[in-house]
Amino acid sequence: MSGNTFGTVFKVTTWGESHGNALGVVVDGTPAGLLLDASVIQKELDRRRPGQSSASTSRNEADTVEILSGVFEGKTTGMPISMMVRNKDANSNAYDYLRTIPRPGHADMLYREKYGTRDHRGGGRSSGRETLGRVAAGAIAKHLLSCYGITVVAHVIELDGIIASEMSFSEVMDNVEKTPVRCADLKAAQRMMQAIEDACKEGDSLGGIVEVIATGVPRGLGEPVFDKLDADIAKALMSIGAVKGLEIGAGFASARMKGSQMNDPFIVKDGQITCPTNNAGGIIGGISTGLPIICRVAVKPTPSISKKQRTVNMETGQECEVQVHGRHDPTIPPRLVPVAEAMVAIVLADHMLRSGFISPSSI
Amino acid sequence: MSGNTFGTVFKVTTWGESHGNALGVVVDGTPAGLLLDASVIQKELDRRRPGQSSASTSRNEADTVEILSGVFEGKTTGMPISMMVRNKDANSNAYDYLRTIPRPGHADMLYREKYGTRDHRGGGRSSGRETLGRVAAGAIAKHLLSCYGITVVAHVIELDGIIASEMSFSEVMDNVEKTPVRCADLKAAQRMMQAIEDACKEGDSLGGIVEVIATGVPRGLGEPVFDKLDADIAKALMSIGAVKGLEIGAGFASARMKGSQMNDPFIVKDGQITCPTNNAGGIIGGISTGLPIICRVAVKPTPSISKKQRTVNMETGQECEVQVHGRHDPTIPPRLVPVAEAMVAIVLADHMLRSGFISPSSI
Amino acid sequence: MSGNTFGTVFKVTTWGESHGNALGVVVDGTPAGLLLDASVIQKELDRRRPGQSSASTSRNEADTVEILSGVFEGKTTGMPISMMVRNKDANSNAYDYLRTIPRPGHADMLYREKYGTRDHRGGGRSSGRETLGRVAAGAIAKHLLSCYGITVVAHVIELDGIIASEMSFSEVMDNVEKTPVRCADLKAAQRMMQAIEDACKEGDSLGGIVEVIATGVPRGLGEPVFDKLDADIAKALMSIGAVKGLEIGAGFASARMKGSQMNDPFIVKDGQITCPTNNAGGIIGGISTGLPIICRVAVKPTPSISKKQRTVNMETGQECEVQVHGRHDPTIPPRLVPVAEAMVAIVLADHMLRSGFISPSSI
Amino acid sequence: MSGNTFGTVFKVTTWGESHGNALGVVVDGTPAGLLLDASVIQKELDRRRPGQSSASTSRNEADTVEILSGVFEGKTTGMPISMMVRNKDANSNAYDYLRTIPRPGHADMLYREKYGTRDHRGGGRSSGRETLGRVAAGAIAKHLLSCYGITVVAHVIELDGIIASEMSFSEVMDNVEKTPVRCADLKAAQRMMQAIEDACKEGDSLGGIVEVIATGVPRGLGEPVFDKLDADIAKALMSIGAVKGLEIGAGFASARMKGSQMNDPFIVKDGQITCPTNNAGGIIGGISTGLPIICRVAVKPTPSISKKQRTVNMETGQECEVQVHGRHDPTIPPRLVPVAEAMVAIVLADHMLRSGFISPSSI
Repeated sequence: MSGNTFGTVFKVTTWGESHGNALGVVVDGTPAGLLLDASVIQKELDRRRPGQSSASTSRNEADTVEILSGVFEGKTTGMPISMMVRNKDANSNAYDYLRTIPRPGHADMLYREKYGTRDHRGGGRSSGRETLGRVAAGAIAKHLLSCYGITVVAHVIELDGIIASEMSFSEVMDNVEKTPVRCADLKAAQRMMQAIEDACKEGDSLGGIVEVIATGVPRGLGEPVFDKLDADIAKALMSIGAVKGLEIGAGFASARMKGSQMNDPFIVKDGQITCPTNNAGGIIGGISTGLPIICRVAVKPTPSISKKQRTVNMETGQECEVQVHGRHDPTIPPRLVPVAEAMVAIVLADHMLRSGFISPSSI
Repeated sequence: MSGNTFGTVFKVTTWGESHGNALGVVVDGTPAGLLLDASVIQKELDRRRPGQSSASTSRNEADTVEILSGVFEGKTTGMPISMMVRNKDANSNAYDYLRTIPRPGHADMLYREKYGTRDHRGGGRSSGRETLGRVAAGAIAKHLLSCYGITVVAHVIELDGIIASEMSFSEVMDNVEKTPVRCADLKAAQRMMQAIEDACKEGDSLGGIVEVIATGVPRGLGEPVFDKLDADIAKALMSIGAVKGLEIGAGFASARMKGSQMNDPFIVKDGQITCPTNNAGGIIGGISTGLPIICRVAVKPTPSISKKQRTVNMETGQECEVQVHGRHDPTIPPRLVPVAEAMVAIVLADHMLRSGFISPSSI
Repeated sequence: MSGNTFGTVFKVTTWGESHGNALGVVVDGTPAGLLLDASVIQKELDRRRPGQSSASTSRNEADTVEILSGVFEGKTTGMPISMMVRNKDANSNAYDYLRTIPRPGHADMLYREKYGTRDHRGGGRSSGRETLGRVAAGAIAKHLLSCYGITVVAHVIELDGIIASEMSFSEVMDNVEKTPVRCADLKAAQRMMQAIEDACKEGDSLGGIVEVIATGVPRGLGEPVFDKLDADIAKALMSIGAVKGLEIGAGFASARMKGSQMNDPFIVKDGQITCPTNNAGGIIGGISTGLPIICRVAVKPTPSISKKQRTVNMETGQECEVQVHGRHDPTIPPRLVPVAEAMVAIVLADHMLRSGFISPSSI
Repeated sequence: MSGNTFGTVFKVTTWGESHGNALGVVVDGTPAGLLLDASVIQKELDRRRPGQSSASTSRNEADTVEILSGVFEGKTTGMPISMMVRNKDANSNAYDYLRTIPRPGHADMLYREKYGTRDHRGGGRSSGRETLGRVAAGAIAKHLLSCYGITVVAHVIELDGIIASEMSFSEVMDNVEKTPVRCADLKAAQRMMQAIEDACKEGDSLGGIVEVIATGVPRGLGEPVFDKLDADIAKALMSIGAVKGLEIGAGFASARMKGSQMNDPFIVKDGQITCPTNNAGGIIGGISTGLPIICRVAVKPTPSISKKQRTVNMETGQECEVQVHGRHDPTIPPRLVPVAEAMVAIVLADHMLRSGFISPSSI
């Protein structure tokens, strides 16, 4: 049973393969009246592209989005918004060996067995290019949320064991796009870039950790007992390729804390009941507390490496070796930043609508 | 928008509050022809009960399940299976202070604000007793999966920083129920029990980590790109109260590995293509690989502690202190074991049906 | 794949068999703060019972509903509302022949083939008793809608070809419960009752037409292009046993009208834009117009008749005859009235929530 | 809450407006391995186009479909299939008056009120052009079903009160495309075409009835108690614009039949249990019986007519008159034929997958 739609009220359906004609997404559930043009989407798609960052000056016109429906005279109409990015002609022959040689760490063989046939070119549907649709939908979600004072930002906090020192939210906002690794601690960023360079030389790849922060989220998002806000965020983030773990607030560290340490006490501040600490990461009992939502995802090293790896020819059943050539990110976390933002934004937009903070037909 | 149903084909809807008339669950989507009687459910509910374990000899008749529909002459009929457990009269007055005093680490205030009113008795819907329905549904899922050679077991691998040494699957199966802490490393279990005793004396609570293992899962479960098997497991586990993080396979450790270390190579064994390692935790690209599925959840310390904590009276707006008295688990991981098993089993049953490994109407 | 849940925000899940332990329903999505007690439900269940009507004075305690969850101190809490009706011990042996002899017009053989096994007693899940859960859920929907000025009422407008003359809405409200046939035209009602008596004598059964009217429905309910209000009403009504057709507004008569006759012109009345006619039946383009919603369902004659019918023994494969004895309604339309009201009310409650006319968490 | 997706396993999401950049559909849930190219889709889209029929020789290249994803080397891959049709530049200014003048029988004002803003050009989303996506998706469904021996065909059986005489299934198959009115009774077809001509002269429009027949449907499709096959067909057909009623089998006529007339008796034929009659229309208790599925929809006359009609200027609130000029079908039933086939095929494909008759990942 198909699984290419995410969300309940803010519904996102992505489609497309790495080397097919195009990739895209249909977003159903955006209220009417939201100012929207392609530049809002393009900005995020540009962040998603290889080696991009606001610091980078290089501009090319690849991955240009076209809005096909749901927007009229500069405003959303409440109808489904269809967006598409054409694939440029690529040298698909470079992937011919993938028909029979499964790459370790990839789902090549699993797709082949599950579906009998598959588009092997560039990983087909399981390629990272599929996230184009997520980022385009996320751009609408982020734009919608911004009208309600909600900001979603992600940044790399660890790469190859290099841990960034803690940064304030404003520092994160200021610095995240300053380096290609998207680490707000610029000193750590330098070391991370060096580690990436070294890994490339070895033909190997690196993993890391990405943190996602959402501020301005009102109290009361989340639908117990199954559609809890953290449960939906967990699914959204784990559905991104290469993510092997996630945590909210104190996360795994909470497993070693005492209740008296973990519990965020209640105090009165400016006449409001709030907490001086945020070990909960902005979510308790599956409902947002009004404090920033903080979650972290563990990203495995890029499975495609040029180092020799053991594998098996699916036709002959003979063991052999494979070297994955062609352009591959030596590490995924920096590129995962806009995708993680997109997925969290989609979940928040969905729950803002579900909880009635955003009216369904027209803002 | 309501969120009390989980699953797409194997649909689980739980209902009930801690001190209401009853708690229960409706399971829709179990194929006809499965041998089933109340004892299958009761066995798991007994494991869920306070201070239970197969080692414990004490038997009392609390939390007795009644199957109300969907079973005829000892077999499922394919119709919804409704199950109910009556609540025994409890001293609800003991919770009167909860009407106005939110407990740190609990969702008391959030429910009050979101819904305007709430059943505060014993935490109402947000009580751990809600898991009764999950465990009853999970018992059916586990029973159904067992007909297809799939076993799901969970155990405590860390508590208060005490780390169990790695155990073989058979050791886990043999030992998990031997101690109340449900840790298969019996030496570590002793230390954990001591830690729990100490925490009780201090009026404090402890966190820990629970590992869930599923064996016999066929290749090919999981529906890219959003309903990936790991994404659905992530939602299922994160929807359990007190869970603040989860990981699959190498999980967060993979963030510090190189691609050449993380990738599980392919080899030929007994004429089958498989992997000598399982860093992926049995799932790649969101699809099961045929190797055991291994995931771990971080469980925060019980928020209810008898130690004094700072809070605020929601009526008067005055800061005050609260001590949460009455019976509370000093630590949650041992009790979470059957619940985590249930949720993973529910996800696997759902995907076995979605992928066509189990036929929808009749087994 | 299971199909026992109806609705998207106001979610109704029914369960139970005719001769099982109990029947019931879980209603998920009722906002918190609605005054509710069992009498609200019982009133509708009493209308559903055989030979009941507000005119009838006979009161017996059969089909007594118990609210098991979701209500606290007389108000809904926003949590799932579970309701149950115990089945009285019935003489199930009377149905033993159904194990092998399929009744014409019934799904006996289809259930047997689809599910391999089935609860044959009294029709099991396919019995009219299943509507108990629908009516209980509908009672909550009607009660919720009444807070927003919406009334849903159904009445029999044709039986065995006897056509009731048109009645005003107030006449319908006044008269519908005055006779057991629930026809507001009391003269026609007398003739209908005579027809029923005659049919009983012949051991035969009668069909008819039920009209459902909903007043006070605001403009703007319905979600194009698939979840149109009339599309959801069509599914809701067609999901009731014995319904073989339905129409909205002019319905089938519109097939013979010219556009200039069918179109409801727009006029200004009391400063509002409205229509002097309602051929549309209150829905255009799948969206409510603010005028009364009017739909009619065609109800086939009761398939269970004591007249001899041709059938086939499923075990032996031999043709034979069957006479369906025991208590059967000679005609269904009068009993379908509360069920049709319930289903339309459930759809309207769902769309009131979907469209934001009712806030999701708390009214 | 958005409603542009239909189906549970075979999921269809349509998008696009009459005068936007393009219209299209994403079909998620088609198993891998189905031979498919654009010609399969184009054939059905050509049938949908104005004034087309297999008899008509005129061929123009309007409404050319492009398959954007989900097909590789001539076969489906199990991934979402995205299809698009570009809109040709149209004279949108012709519709400027629609900004303020609602057309009787249209949802213009309702969209404006519900969404605040709308694309008024050519009816925007509520235009009949939206059915392009349905027909494209239906073409895949029909193609998939044909692999399992299932045929879905629709034809006009009544127009402006002219009733076609009953035709055999083969006559319907042979004749339906022989005339533009798609009536298999060629004599009646001539009279219908004359009636259409007359209506055009008067600047008026006509309604009619379309019958949909599905043969080769196996026993056992349909998921009680809500997702019954007839309930899902009812929703599918009622979601088509201009449909005001529908019936299955004997339909409304059954309301005037006795049980002894309506019930289809069981007999043995060629060693199989079947029925000599099909008053049920191929569905009993919501489950397919194996006999042909027969349903009819009542189609109202085209609301757009050039005759003067009363309406109100939404800006000024003044009553006025409107004449809807431009190209309009004088009657909808002939054009509804491929759309009705598409919707029934989509429901059948969905239920073939839900019931396990078609395996979900690969055929």
